[in-house]
Amino acid sequence: MKKNCIIAQSGGPTPAINASLAGIIKGIIDSEGFDKVFGSLHGVTGVFNEDFLDLTALAEKDDRFLERLSLSPAMYLGSCRFKLQDPAKDDSDFKKLFTIFHKMNIGAFFYIGGNDSMDTAAKLAEYGKKIGSDILFAGVPKTIDNDLVLTDHTPGYGSAAKYIASSLLEMAHDTYIYGIPCVTIVEIMGRDAGWLTAAAALARNSYNETPQLIYLPEVTFDPDRFIDDVKEKLKTHNNLIVAVSEGIRNSEGEYIASTKAASDKFGHAQLSGAGKVLEHFVKEKVGVKCRSVELNILQRCASHLASKTDLDEAFKLGYEAVGHIVNGETGFMTAIKRISNTPYTYNIEAVDVSKVANAAKSVPVEWITPEGNDVTEELINYIRPLIIGEVAHEYKDGLPSYIDIKHLV
Amino acid sequence: MKKNCIIAQSGGPTPAINASLAGIIKGIIDSEGFDKVFGSLHGVTGVFNEDFLDLTALAEKDDRFLERLSLSPAMYLGSCRFKLQDPAKDDSDFKKLFTIFHKMNIGAFFYIGGNDSMDTAAKLAEYGKKIGSDILFAGVPKTIDNDLVLTDHTPGYGSAAKYIASSLLEMAHDTYIYGIPCVTIVEIMGRDAGWLTAAAALARNSYNETPQLIYLPEVTFDPDRFIDDVKEKLKTHNNLIVAVSEGIRNSEGEYIASTKAASDKFGHAQLSGAGKVLEHFVKEKVGVKCRSVELNILQRCASHLASKTDLDEAFKLGYEAVGHIVNGETGFMTAIKRISNTPYTYNIEAVDVSKVANAAKSVPVEWITPEGNDVTEELINYIRPLIIGEVAHEYKDGLPSYIDIKHLV
Repeated sequence: MKKNCIIAQSGGPTPAINASLAGIIKGIIDSEGFDKVFGSLHGVTGVFNEDFLDLTALAEKDDRFLERLSLSPAMYLGSCRFKLQDPAKDDSDFKKLFTIFHKMNIGAFFYIGGNDSMDTAAKLAEYGKKIGSDILFAGVPKTIDNDLVLTDHTPGYGSAAKYIASSLLEMAHDTYIYGIPCVTIVEIMGRDAGWLTAAAALARNSYNETPQLIYLPEVTFDPDRFIDDVKEKLKTHNNLIVAVSEGIRNSEGEYIASTKAASDKFGHAQLSGAGKVLEHFVKEKVGVKCRSVELNILQRCASHLASKTDLDEAFKLGYEAVGHIVNGETGFMTAIKRISNTPYTYNIEAVDVSKVANAAKSVPVEWITPEGNDVTEELINYIRPLIIGEVAHEYKDGLPSYIDIKHLV
Repeated sequence: MKKNCIIAQSGGPTPAINASLAGIIKGIIDSEGFDKVFGSLHGVTGVFNEDFLDLTALAEKDDRFLERLSLSPAMYLGSCRFKLQDPAKDDSDFKKLFTIFHKMNIGAFFYIGGNDSMDTAAKLAEYGKKIGSDILFAGVPKTIDNDLVLTDHTPGYGSAAKYIASSLLEMAHDTYIYGIPCVTIVEIMGRDAGWLTAAAALARNSYNETPQLIYLPEVTFDPDRFIDDVKEKLKTHNNLIVAVSEGIRNSEGEYIASTKAASDKFGHAQLSGAGKVLEHFVKEKVGVKCRSVELNILQRCASHLASKTDLDEAFKLGYEAVGHIVNGETGFMTAIKRISNTPYTYNIEAVDVSKVANAAKSVPVEWITPEGNDVTEELINYIRPLIIGEVAHEYKDGLPSYIDIKHLV
């Protein structure tokens, strides 16, 4: 009798995480090695609650299920924020999970997510080995933040980068219409890593020099130098766009967005984000028209502008995880190894998931200009291939037609 | 010898205003009634400064100029914020403009814009008649706010509505992933009219009930009733999305976003917008997870998600303005008269531009629910046809390829 398997998703939404889910389902169907594929609702908590969807049935009922799933934003199976205890200290959760796994005749568990999900996959694989279980555990990477180690980049990042660069280009057209000096601050996600903010540089083209200034969290943000940078750029540009990470910090390591850092320097009491703080800086210290825009959650859910490269890779990372499982491997995460930028080529390999868990990858400082206010050509060349290609969405009543998520509501 | 004509654009950006520009240029070429078409840079101020682009040359040089122009965001000719004096009080600006018009052998002037631009077109037409000039003046409507009178709706509105509804739908997927109560406030443009905020309702479909609450500026906003509304909806919905106009006001007529109204009620000092204020209300008075998202300037420049219906109408409103000019008419604005919703049919007609100038059209109160926290089916049926259809953008290096605007930089 064939075994069943479970797939779960976790962490924050991306436009690519459902493509990985579709890739795993397709891989399992093609492998003919398993009976049923269960989707665990709301991450690993769905296993505790025995809250499952029968994904095999959904795929069999609707020929276009996997295709439509791949193109839909956020996680079809829902998410959770849950970190398993160290089993050496308390293995009660592990016992519960393995009891349910055995009851359901589970042969493999796939977790799609970021650091925390990889931590869960690593701990389950290790515990499984310890108790002599034959259940195999795989991680499939996902995060718009692009901060996982041992993989060239992460699914979700390319689509978010495409959305950010396209939005910045459209905002550039918007800012060019008036002939008067104007500064637009665009706050971009990424509290500890500047990968998303760096993608703003891809908006530059033959006629558009914006954003002229880019500030990543990897280098210290000095408000006085920022004001000098803005004044200097305004000498030669009427329309200035500044891309700034939500996570920029001052020399004391305080977030610029925090009440304390902002009020120490400029006496503001209630501020919302780094962009808003910088808007106030410019208004007070430069005295030109200034506005701030926070790209906000659309960065991680704007599937209508997903990158085809990103979705294809997300699917493959899911699909190939099944291959490694069928080979009897456990405790791995599928990862991308880039071979070249032009033409863009890569391999998919399996890496030790325990080495991915709880580590984080920042933008290398050599990819940030010495002045700390822009990124280098190397960084742009690294990002560019990841935003290439568009996907053909169906539209219904004027809106992108996504997969029904009523089971989550 | 054939005369020349001038086209100018003004007000705020939209994804459709360049389609109207393309429509006028095409109309003039097809009419064979004029020699050259000049684009005045930065609205009517380009005439004062004699700062023109030769649009005929651009269209002749590049077969695809008009098509690419139609698909590009914000005004290709730039904008201005400039209101002509009442000529009865001071006609010096009029004298300057007509001197330049005569010097350039101008036969017609087309102004694409909102209320202020229609005011300019009306005053120029009236002054022209008074001095016995044979120059003809046409207005072509444009505003995402949809607040012009004498036209069923305005170009730019349909694309903004499509962007808003699509973004709300994608945000709905984003909010559904967690099983815990969460309120997302989405602040939408429209200081005095709720048309844009109402478009959020189009995100609802067979599985998505969000946004469950919608607040327009046409009705008084009561913070206590808002909190009651949120508590009531949370009884039956885990994930609440609230669409709110930036322009909501309390019973004293003060903007909720203003420091005074917010601090009177809740003691906040420095707040940015209505969404942020409502976020604080919910956190303090309801005590659930809450975040706010400001859609911001992307509402008016996200051409990658433009409505085909909107761009087609914008083009026709420009094209047909030429027909009325060729008929010798002046002092008019082209307008849309809707014939039916299903199937969606309409006529284009010319209306008195002086009656459009300085008037504004709000959402009728009968299209808002008696509770003041949602819109009616009639309003949804009014908006739906305007967001239908997608346009095929070219992409270059992963980004939408728009027309070069180097001349504005």
